[in-house]
Amino acid sequence: MKVVFLGTAASKPTKERGLSSIALQYKGNVVLFDCGENAQRQMLSIIKPSKISSMFLTHFHGDHILGIPGLLMTMSLNERKEPLYIYGPKKTIYFLKNFFKSGYFGITFDVIIKELKDKDIVDFKEFYVRSFETNHGVPSLGYVFKEKDRRGSFIEEKAKKLGIKGRMFAELEKNGEIYLGGRKITLEEVTDPKKIGKSIVYTGDTLPVDIPFEECDLLIHDATFLNDQDRNDTYHSTVKEACETAVKIKAKKLVLTHISQRYSIGEIQEEAWKYFENTIVAEDFMVIEL
Amino acid sequence: MKVVFLGTAASKPTKERGLSSIALQYKGNVVLFDCGENAQRQMLSIIKPSKISSMFLTHFHGDHILGIPGLLMTMSLNERKEPLYIYGPKKTIYFLKNFFKSGYFGITFDVIIKELKDKDIVDFKEFYVRSFETNHGVPSLGYVFKEKDRRGSFIEEKAKKLGIKGRMFAELEKNGEIYLGGRKITLEEVTDPKKIGKSIVYTGDTLPVDIPFEECDLLIHDATFLNDQDRNDTYHSTVKEACETAVKIKAKKLVLTHISQRYSIGEIQEEAWKYFENTIVAEDFMVIEL
Repeated sequence: MKVVFLGTAASKPTKERGLSSIALQYKGNVVLFDCGENAQRQMLSIIKPSKISSMFLTHFHGDHILGIPGLLMTMSLNERKEPLYIYGPKKTIYFLKNFFKSGYFGITFDVIIKELKDKDIVDFKEFYVRSFETNHGVPSLGYVFKEKDRRGSFIEEKAKKLGIKGRMFAELEKNGEIYLGGRKITLEEVTDPKKIGKSIVYTGDTLPVDIPFEECDLLIHDATFLNDQDRNDTYHSTVKEACETAVKIKAKKLVLTHISQRYSIGEIQEEAWKYFENTIVAEDFMVIEL
Repeated sequence: MKVVFLGTAASKPTKERGLSSIALQYKGNVVLFDCGENAQRQMLSIIKPSKISSMFLTHFHGDHILGIPGLLMTMSLNERKEPLYIYGPKKTIYFLKNFFKSGYFGITFDVIIKELKDKDIVDFKEFYVRSFETNHGVPSLGYVFKEKDRRGSFIEEKAKKLGIKGRMFAELEKNGEIYLGGRKITLEEVTDPKKIGKSIVYTGDTLPVDIPFEECDLLIHDATFLNDQDRNDTYHSTVKEACETAVKIKAKKLVLTHISQRYSIGEIQEEAWKYFENTIVAEDFMVIEL
């Protein structure tokens, strides 16, 4: 599983940073979180647009969504036929409908749009994405990406000793238990400990919020401001607040993103290390493997 | 006067080329022709968004207009107050209205949108822009930018010899003529030959069309295809056709743009030189001074 940071700027692009977009590469599929202007160019020779199966949008400020129509137009020029699923907060359908009526786009595939609420689950075969409400002054969501847990491998010797053989393995796998000579044998008894799926939490833009998931492998958090007084009346987090949230949910690693051009990376990194050691400041094209 | 090529790709961005946008810097003002996705980032440290007074759009395919909302959002973050004028073909108002309803943009200034028809003139103090219909399968316009001609400098010695002095200069300037001792003296008599204003023609995307302007200093022409058979049923020009148009309207210089990634620059340049010598193949960030 690879997390590719396609854009890490706050609100306006800079020479070094494009607008918000994160691609999650998972077994040949790509799930895109936000799609800021120019995402399609940022992903050149990294992500094939045809691999993007679904898109999760945190909110409808321009810097998080203006790359959508261009990307869909390019997918259409590439003659995509597969449907694309777009998930987002309240008003996603209204906004995207207007978007597609703002020019001649000639989309060649179905775009299936679904609005999510707090704590909705979108279930995929090997993972799920769960939304949670954030606090950004407009309808907004954060997302938990959770790879499903899988059973451990069979401990063949132990299983054989208990008399399991042939099609019994399949039955045990299917039902979670099997009766042999009056004794119940559970799947857990004859397999290694289950493999815990990886998990990623992405907040999008937000003031600090409660995240309904603990011990994620990676927390990607808004960290627009270094000082509380710079925030004014905007709904963003400070570096310190992002770190405090990481501590609170026992995140294993923290990536700070939505980086304002007013601070140096050194300043941000130094501030973060005061509160949470395993912190990285995001950069465009940075890749994190999990 | 500087013409800055901010994006020169055809339909999709490449690593080297952004999407269509051309900035014309004229005495501290900037007129933008088309505004493809990411134009705001392409213009970083070249064009200040605050200097853009008006925008002329050739048509509403995504690669020519998807940079508009992001640019306007950035202008708003910069607290712009001055109105912005946007001109384009039929349906410009409908499309832009939907555009501004596709997210939360919080525009801080007036956006004045006007739809132009064939051979409309938008008059500015020192120049005018004239639209002409092009042939691109959807409502589309090309534009002539024409700096107004100015009178030559006064030939002071000659004027004095004829008795012109003091406030008479202002009167002559205003009325174009003055009567002195019963003799009519015209402005032309006592000034150097008039200074012919510079002129630029931009076609946008189009099949070859009649351009209602001759001997322009610069013709910027769609040259998407090298071979006629690559065109299929698209409404674009070949390199040869762009050159033929340059010859026909006696353009002084030709810039080929909307460059398809399927050809090498060398091939395009070589083909062009067969038909029109003073041809350049556009590149991103190329600047032409006039």
